[in-house]
Amino acid sequence: MIPSARPVRRPVTGVQVLAVDEHGAHRRPDQLVTEEPLELRVHGPGEVPTQLVVTMRTPGNDFELAAGFLRTEGIITSGDDIATIAYCLQGDEQQFNIVTVHLRHPVVAQLATRSFLSTSACGVCGKAALDDIAVRAEPVAAGPVVPASALRALPDTLAEHQRVFGETGGLHAAARFGAGGTLVAVREDVGRHNALVKVLGALARAGRPASGGFVLVTSRASYEMVQKAAMCGVELLAAISRPTGLAIRFAEGANVTLAALVRGESGNVYCHPRRISLTQPEE
Amino acid sequence: MIPSARPVRRPVTGVQVLAVDEHGAHRRPDQLVTEEPLELRVHGPGEVPTQLVVTMRTPGNDFELAAGFLRTEGIITSGDDIATIAYCLQGDEQQFNIVTVHLRHPVVAQLATRSFLSTSACGVCGKAALDDIAVRAEPVAAGPVVPASALRALPDTLAEHQRVFGETGGLHAAARFGAGGTLVAVREDVGRHNALVKVLGALARAGRPASGGFVLVTSRASYEMVQKAAMCGVELLAAISRPTGLAIRFAEGANVTLAALVRGESGNVYCHPRRISLTQPEE
Repeated sequence: MIPSARPVRRPVTGVQVLAVDEHGAHRRPDQLVTEEPLELRVHGPGEVPTQLVVTMRTPGNDFELAAGFLRTEGIITSGDDIATIAYCLQGDEQQFNIVTVHLRHPVVAQLATRSFLSTSACGVCGKAALDDIAVRAEPVAAGPVVPASALRALPDTLAEHQRVFGETGGLHAAARFGAGGTLVAVREDVGRHNALVKVLGALARAGRPASGGFVLVTSRASYEMVQKAAMCGVELLAAISRPTGLAIRFAEGANVTLAALVRGESGNVYCHPRRISLTQPEE
Repeated sequence: MIPSARPVRRPVTGVQVLAVDEHGAHRRPDQLVTEEPLELRVHGPGEVPTQLVVTMRTPGNDFELAAGFLRTEGIITSGDDIATIAYCLQGDEQQFNIVTVHLRHPVVAQLATRSFLSTSACGVCGKAALDDIAVRAEPVAAGPVVPASALRALPDTLAEHQRVFGETGGLHAAARFGAGGTLVAVREDVGRHNALVKVLGALARAGRPASGGFVLVTSRASYEMVQKAAMCGVELLAAISRPTGLAIRFAEGANVTLAALVRGESGNVYCHPRRISLTQPEE
């Protein structure tokens, strides 16, 4: 399992709230998820860092978020493309809110000619024209076959590993599992896209493939999330809530199996069900 | 109550899924929320339309979404600033995914000098630098005092009015209530920001203030949602889930009361509790 980095800031914030019920009001402590902006800057050898995007995120695993953003946007193809990732420590209060990625290859000219300059970690929003929402991901590989029983056990497995969620109830999580159901990495964030991007970035930084297993997200599967997963070669994306219609259309074209583990119901498979096996694997 | 427009496309899509449980697999119909990109173009008298933003949204009340985006970004201050809103009907498959707003005042020069050109309906994402996340909203007015009992009844009231949610389980909703709890407008969208922006746009188009009552959202209250609400003068924002720490900091500065109606618990008030009354109003 790829361990989660120790956050430079606490991912939860303690506050005092006025709790109101039918009996009256009283002050009591509450725990909230921390939300701070992260500005991502990128540059290649000899280049001046370029501001790429700002996203609201929960502090923690910021370098994985940076790497995952570059990977899901196709700016890098593996963690080896990254020379260094560092906070921009200028001594002001934003010092842990700016991350600069130094790549091994030139990047500024590429950025100037592509439309993702204004793309955000939350997908298509930020793009100015419909033409910018192009499908860049190649169809993913055949990939492994996963027993349905492993998928059904996922929500409970993930809940066990969600540290911050239990304290605040306000976080999304994403996790990469091996084909047999072994947890490889789990990451949390106030933004559901960011949680997925952090996991994909963690894999890239660790030199581990995103393919060959499956990914679970605690939110619904939107178009952009399927796109990000497919960009990294994920063959099977499972979500706790239902996908959107557009997410299915994209997954069909990208050869991604899309499943939803709706609580209290059966698991639903929306496309490419051949990767899910109903029989238990032989020991 | 401001009625919801009849959508030009169905907000839900019927699909066939493979339902998998411990007994096996069988095909059955399922309903999914529709997600399509919307490109917003804007121009003033004699100006060529400028592409402003693309957001993924659930079709329906698209003109309110357009008006709400312009209102929450400060491009218009009321619905009177809008001359016409129309789909760009060019005969192709995207014909209902492009909305052009014709303003009564020039806008293109203003857009060129401001940073929201790449801003999306989901808040700060899409902005390229931390400096772009400026607080533009003036502190809101004192506003009315709302009985706590009216707030506690809200989740049930909203659930009754959520049409699409019941079918798909995949939509967010936002609603504006009068100070006594009367529902003024409710809108739904696959994106939680879009649901809020549609409600604020519906009010702007109908010439109704966003102030003088309160707004409920079925998601958590993030920084960007408080900012959008404050921009329109909303004095009290209630959410079903907990806010983030940054949302509270912003609400404190903008004089917005922030409350969370966490299911199964008491209601929590995070700042400016003076607008919530514990005693029932006298008849």
